[in-house]
Amino acid sequence: MEHPSRRDVLAGGAAVLTSFGWLRGARAQAAPASAGPADPKLIEDLVAANRILVDQGVVDGYGHVSVRHDKAADRYLMSRSVAPELVTAADIMEYDLDSVPVDSRGRAMYLERFIHGEIYRVRPDVQAVVHNHSPSVIPFGATGVPLRPLYHMSAFLWPGVPVFEIRNAGGPATDMLIRNAALGQTLARSLGASPVVLMRGHGAVAVGGSLPEGVFRAVYTEVNARLQAQAMALGGTVVYLDPEEAKRAQASVAGTIGRPWELWKKKALAR
Amino acid sequence: MEHPSRRDVLAGGAAVLTSFGWLRGARAQAAPASAGPADPKLIEDLVAANRILVDQGVVDGYGHVSVRHDKAADRYLMSRSVAPELVTAADIMEYDLDSVPVDSRGRAMYLERFIHGEIYRVRPDVQAVVHNHSPSVIPFGATGVPLRPLYHMSAFLWPGVPVFEIRNAGGPATDMLIRNAALGQTLARSLGASPVVLMRGHGAVAVGGSLPEGVFRAVYTEVNARLQAQAMALGGTVVYLDPEEAKRAQASVAGTIGRPWELWKKKALAR
Amino acid sequence: MEHPSRRDVLAGGAAVLTSFGWLRGARAQAAPASAGPADPKLIEDLVAANRILVDQGVVDGYGHVSVRHDKAADRYLMSRSVAPELVTAADIMEYDLDSVPVDSRGRAMYLERFIHGEIYRVRPDVQAVVHNHSPSVIPFGATGVPLRPLYHMSAFLWPGVPVFEIRNAGGPATDMLIRNAALGQTLARSLGASPVVLMRGHGAVAVGGSLPEGVFRAVYTEVNARLQAQAMALGGTVVYLDPEEAKRAQASVAGTIGRPWELWKKKALAR
Amino acid sequence: MEHPSRRDVLAGGAAVLTSFGWLRGARAQAAPASAGPADPKLIEDLVAANRILVDQGVVDGYGHVSVRHDKAADRYLMSRSVAPELVTAADIMEYDLDSVPVDSRGRAMYLERFIHGEIYRVRPDVQAVVHNHSPSVIPFGATGVPLRPLYHMSAFLWPGVPVFEIRNAGGPATDMLIRNAALGQTLARSLGASPVVLMRGHGAVAVGGSLPEGVFRAVYTEVNARLQAQAMALGGTVVYLDPEEAKRAQASVAGTIGRPWELWKKKALAR
Repeated sequence: MEHPSRRDVLAGGAAVLTSFGWLRGARAQAAPASAGPADPKLIEDLVAANRILVDQGVVDGYGHVSVRHDKAADRYLMSRSVAPELVTAADIMEYDLDSVPVDSRGRAMYLERFIHGEIYRVRPDVQAVVHNHSPSVIPFGATGVPLRPLYHMSAFLWPGVPVFEIRNAGGPATDMLIRNAALGQTLARSLGASPVVLMRGHGAVAVGGSLPEGVFRAVYTEVNARLQAQAMALGGTVVYLDPEEAKRAQASVAGTIGRPWELWKKKALAR
Repeated sequence: MEHPSRRDVLAGGAAVLTSFGWLRGARAQAAPASAGPADPKLIEDLVAANRILVDQGVVDGYGHVSVRHDKAADRYLMSRSVAPELVTAADIMEYDLDSVPVDSRGRAMYLERFIHGEIYRVRPDVQAVVHNHSPSVIPFGATGVPLRPLYHMSAFLWPGVPVFEIRNAGGPATDMLIRNAALGQTLARSLGASPVVLMRGHGAVAVGGSLPEGVFRAVYTEVNARLQAQAMALGGTVVYLDPEEAKRAQASVAGTIGRPWELWKKKALAR
Repeated sequence: MEHPSRRDVLAGGAAVLTSFGWLRGARAQAAPASAGPADPKLIEDLVAANRILVDQGVVDGYGHVSVRHDKAADRYLMSRSVAPELVTAADIMEYDLDSVPVDSRGRAMYLERFIHGEIYRVRPDVQAVVHNHSPSVIPFGATGVPLRPLYHMSAFLWPGVPVFEIRNAGGPATDMLIRNAALGQTLARSLGASPVVLMRGHGAVAVGGSLPEGVFRAVYTEVNARLQAQAMALGGTVVYLDPEEAKRAQASVAGTIGRPWELWKKKALAR
Repeated sequence: MEHPSRRDVLAGGAAVLTSFGWLRGARAQAAPASAGPADPKLIEDLVAANRILVDQGVVDGYGHVSVRHDKAADRYLMSRSVAPELVTAADIMEYDLDSVPVDSRGRAMYLERFIHGEIYRVRPDVQAVVHNHSPSVIPFGATGVPLRPLYHMSAFLWPGVPVFEIRNAGGPATDMLIRNAALGQTLARSLGASPVVLMRGHGAVAVGGSLPEGVFRAVYTEVNARLQAQAMALGGTVVYLDPEEAKRAQASVAGTIGRPWELWKKKALAR
């Protein structure tokens, strides 16, 4: 860039931000108390969610999904750091909202767990968080072309899909990863009240009021991105869902999520 | 939109339409008489049809296929509300043309069953109806770019493929779903004498003179959409089938549908 | 079209052409003599070829592949009319070059078998013929954009890929099918000395000096079409193989066809 | 081309180059000494790497991957000439950097093994080499549109991806193959210090400091190419990773390669 001194300043600012995050993490290193065993069905759904996201092409060897603990709003559950396809119930760990593990037992943690904790902190409505490198979505994050609901299944996109530009918070020299609470907080701010936020040069995060809804949204954001790109390429004017239609379609479709979830879960657990 | 008062009027009109549909449904709530057991082979074909449509990428966790009862023209058969991939013979329910179930036994019904009943009512030639969110087709419905037969397998598209715009019937504030007989009737009117109708912001419906033909048409509408988009993207003039060619090709190809059906059914029932 | 009387004339001409083809078929109806049993390995390769073409996405429920009989140049072998994926050794039938079966035993024949017989008749170098609805290739036939070799694996395309326009031979009102010897002859004339001919609004035919080579060419024509469309879409100038490079690459690659064939055949026969 | 005499000159020059390569090969024909048995785990990883590259759509019936011998920097290990999907431990052969086999036992060798030997010779940092016909990458090599990192997973592309034009070294009449040491050397010179080099009209080569890293890079170059083409097609400005971001992302992501490798290897060896 043309102004090295400005970069230095920004890098310095990023270092300061990072330090604050580290201090925050350091203060919280004393293991937080467990909220107790989660409902085994929730754990089972979380394991299934990992495999479903693989089956649906939303995650590959990377990506992670979490769910808020059913016994405590300030705890969430997520696998240790392993490819989603390999997650089993024994891999599920409990975290506080600073993303400090309750009982790590030396298991490696997802570097970007802060994505989850910081969203749970500011979004009491959110019960599940999916971080992915959803392929068809990445080009939208890289171009700023707005993702908009093309059909009723992705009507939940009607509020708009913000794009998180990590350079705004972390400066020009980050490694693109949400590696601490401070960066997690800026990402959560970008997400705002939306169901999805894109991460420029990285991927996306989808949230939901339940694990099935979070997974559903991650899947149908990917589908919408693919179909929207096709629609744009056909030429002519693309008609998206009208906001009034979209609000109602979202509400109606939300009531049907059990139908794909039943199928997806059955196949996921049959492996 | 710029005229809230107009929207209110339209919404009110939609509410009136909906009420009429509900009244219609209410009057028909007394369970209609069964036409008796359908041919077991027809049930088997219907179960297979569900899986075939999944295998061919035409339906996912959503979508449904029905067939007119072989014993009575005013009855049709369709699964209870479940993902197509999970449909078994035990799930098949019998409906009258108001889409009232003969023997629901408390089983959930597809919300949009009216798509089927209302088409059977006005299309005596139709023996099978497929409702789907056929992915490659959705961009055509969203842009109004006309689907036209690119090759002989989709020659049946030659009459033209209408696009159903739900706002014309239901106003600007529908939830995009064909949730009652009135909306089903407007959709059937859009379909007219065509083999396929697109639903803007939703998906499509394909019909056929038999279950294999209905499934065949759903599959090859999807293929045609995919290939037509590719042809348009190559640049240059796209040569579609001439209407004379298309009529004859449709007739000839119709005589060969047993060949893919045999393969598709064999694989579907082998799962 | 603007001149019905011209269409009538052309249709009449088509009818005459068809009649000649029928007469030709009628004269040949006396079953031709068999050339004796073909090499069982050739039959095995032919069965494998069918499945390979399915696995490679070149054929679906439609399409067919044949091989010239190893005992007689005026006989060829091809399955009865069934989806390629279902072909077994027991389905293989023997035909003369008029595409009359030696021993039909009432089995249904591929309507378009004339594609094969007429090519064997005029191309003594050809030992295998693949007819397909190769998806990525169809848009090229529909637009006339020339298929050209993008990389060494499809170097065999360097002579150019002709496009067969059935209206030139059969008039504006054909059903798009090569349903008799006369149409087969016009298609063979379009093919000329090329390895591949596209059929506008239909699909393609690939030929080879052996069954592996014919299958290889069908597969890599599909791949080339897909990649060429992507290259054209990237913008900028697309550099195709220079004719000198292409000739030599074709010769060198031809010597390596055993490598994919071994893999493809092993997987095909393991089903 | 317009100047046959110039072509003759170039062809002559290519012949001379080829002769030098042959002589080089001839001098080295006395079998080189073995470095002894390689670590069985390295062999196991090499077998897995072959299958992983197939699973990830980077290689098909063609392509090959090698790893530098763990006991000697002037030896490398690669399968005999067979489709990657069929490679087993018994197929692994040992080569010196002239790509002469230690103990060929009459087994056929990959014609283009020189790609590997010549890169190991000039890149002491490289421990693994992948040669492929990575489909989404080929259009970039054919158009010269520069591959650039669209997201953090392909950050390693930040130094730029050179394109090897074989006509610069071998003249206008090569068969596109790296069939001798001289051509291998020109390719290695094109690669320079980069992680990937595209081969116009052919495919690509990816290198890594370990076998998992080489495979990872081959996979994510393919993904990046696919997503970059989609981003370019969306219109608007495509934002690639800033070089500062890319360097840091590459370093951070490099530390996570074990996560997909664990998954990929487990599935590859479970076949």
